[in-house]
Formats: sequence, structure tokens, C-alpha cells
Amino acid sequence: MSASDLLRSLARCVGEAHVRCAESEMAAFLLDWRGRYRGRALAVVQPATTDEVAAVVRHCRVYGVHIVPQGGNTGLVGGATPLEEQAPAIVLHLGRLRRIRSLEPQEFTVVAEAGVTVREVQEAARSANRLFPLSLASEGSATVGGVCATNAGGVHVLRYGTTRDLVLGLEVVLADGSVISSLQGLRKDNTGYAWKPLFVGSEGTLGVITAATFKLFPLSTEVVTAWVAVPDPAAAVRLFSWLRETVGEGLEAFELMGRTTLELVLKHIPQARVPFSGEPPAWSVLVEFAEAGRGAQLQERVERAMTVAIERGWVQDVALAANEAQRRALWALRENASEAQRFEGFSFKHDVSLPIRALPEFIAECEARLRRHWPTVTLVCFGHLGDGNLHYNVFPTGIEPAQWPLIEPRLSGLVHDTVAEFGGSISAEHGIGRLKAELLPRYKSEEELSLLRRLKAAIDPENLFNPGKVVRGDDRPCSEET
Amino acid sequence: MSASDLLRSLARCVGEAHVRCAESEMAAFLLDWRGRYRGRALAVVQPATTDEVAAVVRHCRVYGVHIVPQGGNTGLVGGATPLEEQAPAIVLHLGRLRRIRSLEPQEFTVVAEAGVTVREVQEAARSANRLFPLSLASEGSATVGGVCATNAGGVHVLRYGTTRDLVLGLEVVLADGSVISSLQGLRKDNTGYAWKPLFVGSEGTLGVITAATFKLFPLSTEVVTAWVAVPDPAAAVRLFSWLRETVGEGLEAFELMGRTTLELVLKHIPQARVPFSGEPPAWSVLVEFAEAGRGAQLQERVERAMTVAIERGWVQDVALAANEAQRRALWALRENASEAQRFEGFSFKHDVSLPIRALPEFIAECEARLRRHWPTVTLVCFGHLGDGNLHYNVFPTGIEPAQWPLIEPRLSGLVHDTVAEFGGSISAEHGIGRLKAELLPRYKSEEELSLLRRLKAAIDPENLFNPGKVVRGDDRPCSEET
Repeated sequence: MSASDLLRSLARCVGEAHVRCAESEMAAFLLDWRGRYRGRALAVVQPATTDEVAAVVRHCRVYGVHIVPQGGNTGLVGGATPLEEQAPAIVLHLGRLRRIRSLEPQEFTVVAEAGVTVREVQEAARSANRLFPLSLASEGSATVGGVCATNAGGVHVLRYGTTRDLVLGLEVVLADGSVISSLQGLRKDNTGYAWKPLFVGSEGTLGVITAATFKLFPLSTEVVTAWVAVPDPAAAVRLFSWLRETVGEGLEAFELMGRTTLELVLKHIPQARVPFSGEPPAWSVLVEFAEAGRGAQLQERVERAMTVAIERGWVQDVALAANEAQRRALWALRENASEAQRFEGFSFKHDVSLPIRALPEFIAECEARLRRHWPTVTLVCFGHLGDGNLHYNVFPTGIEPAQWPLIEPRLSGLVHDTVAEFGGSISAEHGIGRLKAELLPRYKSEEELSLLRRLKAAIDPENLFNPGKVVRGDDRPCSEET
Repeated sequence: MSASDLLRSLARCVGEAHVRCAESEMAAFLLDWRGRYRGRALAVVQPATTDEVAAVVRHCRVYGVHIVPQGGNTGLVGGATPLEEQAPAIVLHLGRLRRIRSLEPQEFTVVAEAGVTVREVQEAARSANRLFPLSLASEGSATVGGVCATNAGGVHVLRYGTTRDLVLGLEVVLADGSVISSLQGLRKDNTGYAWKPLFVGSEGTLGVITAATFKLFPLSTEVVTAWVAVPDPAAAVRLFSWLRETVGEGLEAFELMGRTTLELVLKHIPQARVPFSGEPPAWSVLVEFAEAGRGAQLQERVERAMTVAIERGWVQDVALAANEAQRRALWALRENASEAQRFEGFSFKHDVSLPIRALPEFIAECEARLRRHWPTVTLVCFGHLGDGNLHYNVFPTGIEPAQWPLIEPRLSGLVHDTVAEFGGSISAEHGIGRLKAELLPRYKSEEELSLLRRLKAAIDPENLFNPGKVVRGDDRPCSEET
């Protein structure tokens, strides 16, 4: 049984045009979004239906060829890129599973196949007067299969949760080619173990997600957006708690941004402007409340709450967006944070989360520790404070480029160790993929790692799916663990 | 190694007074809440700390003695009751793990041990100006460990989700006596497979939950409660969708109740009174909106939405509670539904869920099918419409008591088959336990069942925990499945 036998079998499953073997055709699928990993594959295979996916899986299993599922290829940790060496693999690209199978407005649910983009789901929902709340920078390319496989977060986690919280149902192809499906969209179902949350966030290592049922919500019609200057992160944490208490659960964004981050945006993004006079504030928070229907008086309630917050010293200044254009301008300050950093150049990036109450002390302590070793670095710290999620990037200002690869392990190790010390996570929303697979054993207990490996071995006993990612089933054969 | 050796070892772990072996002492722990199952055990063991739980687990494993974890013993499917025959077992009663380890108002989290009651968590949260939204009839006895193990639902699922949605962290003792813990309460953590949701709802068959971190919410300060008469369930579904759209996500209860149910409440509960003049309506809905802070104008918004709903024929009459006493009276109509049925006598009970849009047709069709075989039965149908969850009880009116046990399998089979046909679940919130373990293979695909068994085998390979429940690891040895 040779590789070419497999490719012929796969061509019979999905059509010859959908088994791509030429290097030129495969190139884009073998390079990760950040350009950090370039993998190898026998072919990029593009099935169009769940049955075709199942057939591809069965053939690959017979031939002992690994499967690396891929969606929009916008992941940030190399999770969808095959390894360079290792046993042969195919990339299983789900982009042709393109149907929105159903959308039920009364049920507040939508069923979409793996290859539908996040934006397409948003638009389908909106046309039925419903909100699909998942929203992230890559939403035009990121797919249903990809956001489920990575448990994507984004800017609305605070109110609506991560992808796992939005998933009511899944259809998954397992390693033996069987299909398990639970797409009815039930809100309550206590019949056996919750396997759906396990596949969400498993980064293609347990099975192939071919479709999902998501929760929808009423469209927000009343929206209040504010840019708020605060003296320090501790004040931001107090403001967060105060706003939830006094204005309520319509709070859907609470984004923290340090002065350095804001200055980079102002420097690199032409239209960017802080809505206050004078210097950019030390710390800013983008706050947004939204509510369906009319008459919730959101603006008055937010103004009232902010007045008290100013009196108490938690807030120095507030600019409320007076219209949609102003609202877009405030969001642009936040949304261009990554883009502005790209213009600025290379940085050591960390996507971490912490208990919210620990954020202020972590920010101070981590900076102090970094400066002890590298006094000249520039710290860019911003993120979803309401979720405890910081994007904590360190620009190697004043350090020779030749040194960067050498200091990276120590520098990132220092950041991650400090995160762990404060009870945080070394990957808040980007996942483990390949980038952090080696780090996992350092930050998880042996007991927890052993459980993760046993789950992998139980669901994908032959390590068919996405080897070398998350728990490294290949490095440590599962049989050693049980 | 005899049983008495084990009991001596356990007494050394937890103290002699906490290993109860006398029949009289064990009786209450060996009988399930509904009095349907009476089990056998070597002892009821009551550890006081996680370390003691781990020690008990290790000893039982060495002696090959099963462990049946038990909380408040208020479950409805016999999940916490040991079997009558089978290999020897102990009941592991978690009632002495009584600490609320921490409560962080700014973080909106609480960490509580397994033996703390739901009401105690509610009260601790309230004293810190926070809401713990889990609320169910048994909350005075039901414990943290129990509600996590069963993924309890209750009356606030619509807004806040089931227990699984409220759990941010867990501490679990596994079958080898190791402890895995993730109690920091992070809102985002994409580091490996989501094992926490798997233990929630596993009904004591995968490990022993010793503590949990729960989400808290702002206390609601504005509350609007209404009793609404609707012509039929289809109108109720339309009203549900309309209220979410126009009044928004503050909707936290939407409870449907048929006339028969309401009449039983009026018959058996002394103070019960429908807030309208004339006959009880064919169908009623209890609606509640709530919001933190002040100024949300909830009442005006609800009144405006109801006015339109009346014009459109979805609503026949509305009574808004004018004060807390009236609100309590409306809730009493709903909360006494189970109590009133207890006075009425025996019924065949079904706790099912359906896609919300399928509810009206299911209610009509299931009644028609039942009446074909048993024309005289009384149908009592009520539940959490917003979650698609019906409590569908059939009183055997006009049928001789001697016949009841004989018709039960056919009657309940008809109800469950009809639920399955409409895409529903045979256990919405009560779980599988022992009562429905035999039914599971009828309503799950072989592929899904096989996955559930592999999960059980991976996490509890020796079937130490709670045999005979959920997936019946004992009936079908796991080795047959892999």
C-alpha cells in the first residue's frame, strides 16, 4: 500500500480536483498564519460533505497516514500546520463544507458546516434579526470548524462566552470513520457524558468537526460605547465590578489598553485619535453596553455610573460615542492594536489570562521582573480585562536582533512563570497547537497531563489526528501513560 | 484482605465516628429520594477534606470495593444509591466538606466544597452583594458536589445556564487517588482538553468532585414578574421569541403550565389563586425579567411588549405582580406544581427536552398517541419552555393500580419514543442514574455510546466509581468496547 494508492483512493472519495498534491497548490495550506511553521504533506484533501470526510478518515487510517484538519488557517499557534518531519500526513481542508443547514429564529439557533466563515454566520443571523456574537479580527476567514476546534474567544466573551459556551451541538467524524452527531440544539440534555465541550478546543487532535449548532441572541438595538481614562489597572478592575453591579449584564466589552499600546496605534494608524485633549491617558478602557429592544435607558444609566466612578477616583475622563461613526472610531483604537504593532516590528507575544483581581499586581510585578534582566524593552499590554485576558507583548527595544532568538526562551519563560505564579493560564484564547506544546508539561500537574493523555488515547487511540499538537501523543506514546 | 480490614483502614483515614456501618445509621443514605431504590453498602464513609477523600479512594481501590459518591441525596434517578446486589460498595458521603474556601466579589466567583448546600452558596453570595443563580426546589439540601455531578438545572437556566455553565473550576479525586484541581476561576483557558465539563453531569461515575468554583452575577434589583394567559403552546413560543427580541436578555424565567397542572395546584395548595377572574386559562406562562442596577425601565418595556402581544393574539391576559408578596404568590403557583401532584397521587413522570419550536406539536401529538391506548389518563404538562424542558407526567386515571407496573414500560416508552422522534432528550435535567441507564442504548447511537464507554474506561478503568449508573460499565465490560 503506497502513498499513491492512498491518493488514488482519496481522489475516488472526493474527486480528483480536490486532492491537491502539487507543491505550488499546497504551499498556502502548509504555512501557518504567522509564517512561523512550514509543514509537509502528501496532499491537501478537500471533501465536500460529512460522508466524504468520513471516507477520507477511513482511508487514511488504513494507510497509517496522519490527518491535520484545517479551516481558515488563521490560527496563531501553528495548530493547523503539519509537522516537517514525522510520519506522512494529509491536510484535511474543510473549506468545501459550505452549507448553513438551518437557522431557526424562534429557537435562537443556527446549524452551520465546518467551512462556513464566522462572518457568513454573523450575516445569516443578522438577516433573520438575530445576533451571532462570536467576533474576532479574523472573522472573514476563520471558519466554524476552526473556531470550534480552537474554542475561539474574541471581543464578546465577557457577555456571551467563548465558542464552547455558544456551541449547542456538534457533528464529529471520529478516528474510526464513525460520525457522532448531536445538532438538534437542545438547551438541556443530561443523557451521558458531555463529549461536545471536549471536542471544542481540542485543536483537531480528537476528531474532525464537520458541523455545529450555535446559540443565537437578540440583535442589540441600544448600544452605548465609551472610551474611559483610568489612573491604573486597579481602578479599571474596580470600574468593571461597579459597572456590572449598577448598569447590569448588558456589559459586553471591557477592553484595557496601556499608554504604550495606544501610542503605537496613534503613531501607525492614520485616522486614530484619542477622544480627549492632552496626553494619551496612562490606561484606557473601552466600555460597551448593549441591549435588545428599546427603552432600556442605557446611556443615562452608564452616565450615572460614570459620574460616581469619577467621584471615587476610579475614572479620570469619559468620552461617550454620540453616533455610530464615533463608536467605530473608538473601536478602531482597540482593533488596530495588533496592526499597529505589526508596523512597529517584532515582539515576543504572550496570550495569557489571570484571575481578574490579580491583573494589577501581575502587570506591575511582571514589568519589574522583565526590567531587571532587560531594562530597555518596551511593554505593550492590552486585552479583555473582563475575561482576565491580557495580550502581553514585549518589544526587544535596545537589544540586537541577533540576540532575540537567544533571549526568547528565558524572556517568555519569565512571563509564563509569573503568570503561573499568579494563578493564570499561558494560553487564554490562542490554544496550544505546536507553539506551546512543549510548555504544557511545565505548567500542568502530572495528574492533569496524564488525564489529557488518557483522553487522547481513548478517543484517538492510533494518534491519527494532528500529531505533535496539544498533548504530544507522538512524543510520549499513550501506552506509556496507562 | 477482608471487608473489615478495609473498614479499619478507612476509620484510620477519616476517624471511627465517620465510618458508619450500622444498618440504622446507613438507612437514610441507602434509600433514594423518591423511595424507588434501596441499596446495600459496607459502610457510609464521611471524610472531611479532599486529602481524606483521596485516601478513602486509594484504600477502596486496593480492596476492589466500589465507591458511590453522595451529596444531599435529593437526586431523582437513583444515581446516588448503591445497587442491591453486585460487588461490595461504600457510600462516600461528602457532607463534611463544608467550607466556602473563598468568595471574590470583584472576580464574581465563589469556591465552595462539595458538602456546602446550594442555599448556603446563595446566601454567601448575597451577603457579598452577588447572585449565585442556581435555584431549584431541593436547594436547602442539594449540595455543590451533587449539583455538579448531576449538572443540575432549575428555574434560572434560561438566563444563566445549567450548572455546567456556572462552573469555572473543579477539584476532582480520580480513581487512582490523584487530585486534579483547577479552581482559580479563569474565564478563559485554552490549555488542553476541557475535562471540567466532562465531570459535570457524570453522576459520580468518573471521579469525586470535592470543590467547585462558580460564576457569580450582580444581584438583580429591578424585577418584573407576570402571569400570562396564552391560548396554546404555539402562542407561548411566539411570545418567548418576541419578549427576548423586544425586552432583551434580562428574561430569566419563562415557565409554561397547562390548565390541568394549574387546577391541581388550586385544588391542593390552600393559598393558591389565579390572578385573573373566571376559569383558569388553557395555558399559562410565568414570565420574569430582572436587571441589576436602577433605571432599566423593565416594567414599562414589558408592558409595551405585552400590549403588542395581546394585539397579535399571542396573549389573552396579563397580571403583573405589583409587589414582592404578589410576586411570591405567582411563583407559588409554579413552585407548588410538584407538591400538588404528590397530593394527587401516583403518576408516570418524564423529564424531557425538545427543540423549542417542536414543543407545540409534540404536546399535541404525544397526547393523541397516549389517548389512543389509554383514553382516560390525565396529562400534567409544565416546565421550562425557554429551555425546551417539559415535565410531562401521566396520571393513570381510570386504570386499576394493579395495572400500573404493567403499563409503565409501554407508556413511558411511547412518551420517550415520541420525544426522540421530535429530536428531543429523554432526560433534560434529572440525569440517567439508575432509572434510565437501561434506556440509554435505545436513544443513543452505537457510535455515541461507544464514545461514552471509552471515556468511562479511560478515566475510571477499573469501574471503581458508581457502577451500574449512566453507561453501565459493569454490564458491558469496557474491554469489549475498545
